[in-house]
Amino acid sequence: MGRVTTRVRRTRLDVESGATVERTDTVAVEEPLEIRVDDAPLTTTMRTPGDDFDLAIGHLLTEGLLHGADEVATLMHCTDLDERGSPTFNVVDVTLAPGVVLHRAPRERTEAMTSACGVCGSASVDAVRTNSRYAVASDPLVLSPDVVAGLPDALRLRQPVFERTGGVHAAALATASGELVHVREDVGRHNAVDKVVGAAARVGALPLAGTVLVVSARASFEIVQKASVSGIPVVVAVGAPTSLAVELAADCGITLVAFTRHPTLSVYTRPDRLTG
Amino acid sequence: MGRVTTRVRRTRLDVESGATVERTDTVAVEEPLEIRVDDAPLTTTMRTPGDDFDLAIGHLLTEGLLHGADEVATLMHCTDLDERGSPTFNVVDVTLAPGVVLHRAPRERTEAMTSACGVCGSASVDAVRTNSRYAVASDPLVLSPDVVAGLPDALRLRQPVFERTGGVHAAALATASGELVHVREDVGRHNAVDKVVGAAARVGALPLAGTVLVVSARASFEIVQKASVSGIPVVVAVGAPTSLAVELAADCGITLVAFTRHPTLSVYTRPDRLTG
Repeated sequence: MGRVTTRVRRTRLDVESGATVERTDTVAVEEPLEIRVDDAPLTTTMRTPGDDFDLAIGHLLTEGLLHGADEVATLMHCTDLDERGSPTFNVVDVTLAPGVVLHRAPRERTEAMTSACGVCGSASVDAVRTNSRYAVASDPLVLSPDVVAGLPDALRLRQPVFERTGGVHAAALATASGELVHVREDVGRHNAVDKVVGAAARVGALPLAGTVLVVSARASFEIVQKASVSGIPVVVAVGAPTSLAVELAADCGITLVAFTRHPTLSVYTRPDRLTG
Repeated sequence: MGRVTTRVRRTRLDVESGATVERTDTVAVEEPLEIRVDDAPLTTTMRTPGDDFDLAIGHLLTEGLLHGADEVATLMHCTDLDERGSPTFNVVDVTLAPGVVLHRAPRERTEAMTSACGVCGSASVDAVRTNSRYAVASDPLVLSPDVVAGLPDALRLRQPVFERTGGVHAAALATASGELVHVREDVGRHNAVDKVVGAAARVGALPLAGTVLVVSARASFEIVQKASVSGIPVVVAVGAPTSLAVELAADCGITLVAFTRHPTLSVYTRPDRLTG
């Protein structure tokens, strides 16, 4: 828990000079996290330890399983010991508030237990999307392109684990003026987004109207989905978008910006939110 | 099916010059693929269409659910129509050969349906690993560091979708002399590996002893796991390794090379397979 990097031995070779250097190197920690809801295992994700409660709540929210952090009564790490006698902190138990039930069947269960035709016979984006409860399309947020172009560099300054390992993604929630309110890193790019949404939700900020989701990686369908479900009207990615990310952003009225590398950026949907 | 890129409108801004260019841009297609086994939905993955049969078989093999392509009788795309009257080709039906059953319960079902303690109370690598049937540790493969250092550049020359979109990962299976035998691209880095393993398995090449798995991305636990289960003794990644990837490679006797950028590379485990 909180152990985000570790040291490993490695041999560095230069095949041109023939030089060999043996030393220890810092790598990003990857460990499984099992999320349980009211004692039932929901999912296991490979994540960087730390901010596990943000990750658990964020996952439940961005998957549409819960609607707010107030639907959770308690969050606890399971402290069972591993065979070396140390607690692993690799299970989070989520106890729902009295009377609360998950708002839909977990995707994991739907897939495994029904034989209903999922992605067949419907347009693909409809088959996999979780509808948002929020009117993201009508969010009046307006941003300066200057601010947007500067977000990846601002994020880059707050990625200490990436700095040391080169091996983790990052996500941030930014304001209209470009201030990064929540920043999280993780070996999984979806986890980084879930941690950010969970952190915001735990301080009562949901829906995340008027905010910008910044991601260090590409913009895939699931990243835009998580923004939509959380009420975030603008997604800014450093990398490329996928076709389904563009399609979903268009459907939801989300502004999707990708290939954001100061001083240039590409706007794929809802360019009206960027005004000079 | 086979539609790997598509064109979308975008607005390119340069915030310094104020220049705005409207044009169409090529993005990588991302669509859901549902894999069904004997009519029961197993999992849905977001993938780049094409090589779907490789992906389906590769997923079943690298997850330890099947042991060989000969355990599959037929592979078929479901051709139901979407609401526009077009087949989506987004479901693959896998029919097992007579008498064959999956060799373990799918992870998706295990998580959803049991309340057994998964990752708690055991060392994390043991909790999530699928044991390999192959003696990867004793694979006598020996490679020249020169060949290894050149693999990412060789892969880069065979990534046409990345070339056009900047938005997909790639994986390849290479021989000891550096020849790339199977190369696949996908928006998902796990899918690219599954497609490569599936392609090799479908021509009867399993176990993949004496081969090298090359990935354009980072080396995470799941990439090393897929190599181990397929009998691949060497993994070469362009990006960083995670802690659990190093731990699993050490446990399995896999040679893990990362940060591979000619002329340098870093060897984390089993450097004895690289000889000068």
